[in-house]
Amino acid sequence: MSYFQQFLKANQAYVDLHGTHHLPLKPKTRVAIVTCMDSRLHVAQALGLALGDAHILRNAGGRVTEDMIRSLVISQQQLGTREIVVLHHTDCGAQTFTNESFQADLQKTLGVDVSRQDFLPFTDVEESVREDMDLLRKSPLIPDDIEIFGAVYDVDTGRMTEVV
Amino acid sequence: MSYFQQFLKANQAYVDLHGTHHLPLKPKTRVAIVTCMDSRLHVAQALGLALGDAHILRNAGGRVTEDMIRSLVISQQQLGTREIVVLHHTDCGAQTFTNESFQADLQKTLGVDVSRQDFLPFTDVEESVREDMDLLRKSPLIPDDIEIFGAVYDVDTGRMTEVV
Repeated sequence: MSYFQQFLKANQAYVDLHGTHHLPLKPKTRVAIVTCMDSRLHVAQALGLALGDAHILRNAGGRVTEDMIRSLVISQQQLGTREIVVLHHTDCGAQTFTNESFQADLQKTLGVDVSRQDFLPFTDVEESVREDMDLLRKSPLIPDDIEIFGAVYDVDTGRMTEVV
Repeated sequence: MSYFQQFLKANQAYVDLHGTHHLPLKPKTRVAIVTCMDSRLHVAQALGLALGDAHILRNAGGRVTEDMIRSLVISQQQLGTREIVVLHHTDCGAQTFTNESFQADLQKTLGVDVSRQDFLPFTDVEESVREDMDLLRKSPLIPDDIEIFGAVYDVDTGRMTEVV
């Protein structure tokens, strides 16, 4: 049995608990959270979010990319969010490689030339949060009155600490 | 008080419950879930995931973009995942606009020319899942032996249904 089949089975139990109710498309808190795909971060639980509260955007590292901006523009201009939280975390996979070594690995294992692809690794997690907050502040697609916060999540303790 | 301050407060309660324990960086199930930022989908609860189980990647629509591929390559080649679930959902924000209308809106409200930006809207949610599964199958960066599943999540009932 694939894990997908197990997820379908677990979902059946969730459906029984969930019941049918319609929440609005627009998130109640008007917040979008930009964070990492890491398996040890369950965003809703860690931040106390109820269903319908906030948009949750996740990629490798929680980095502000062109696609993240695309998503935030939809979040803000179509769905009314007004606040962004950039949340990176300790012990991140994006801290385990450099572009150069990873590009060489992929050339070897997949036979694909990715020498011009930036995989957005970082070393200092507070610095990466500040970099991404800066990218948001400088983007012409993110209005100046959007509030931007930054934080680091500790995957061992579950604690979120603000980065200023 | 901003919502961010409220999240920090809620997180304090989570930390007290969480305790300190170290889980491995590599996800236990070796699955990466590609889904939407929508606030009415709490992925871990809906699929029965424990902390440390699976990567969760989310953007507007749950679409397979260049950044999604970047993240999946890191997920697979650095962190060992071998299965992908593409999970779109009913009543999606990506179904509420066309590129043409949204581009014109943004030109007016933000004064930015985004006429060449594809915001990846869709009309049929099963079709969008199939399109994104196809993009994954065709990508030279996703090895052929990676298992790819697709599903639609119903935001009213919480039910996940496979798309084949």
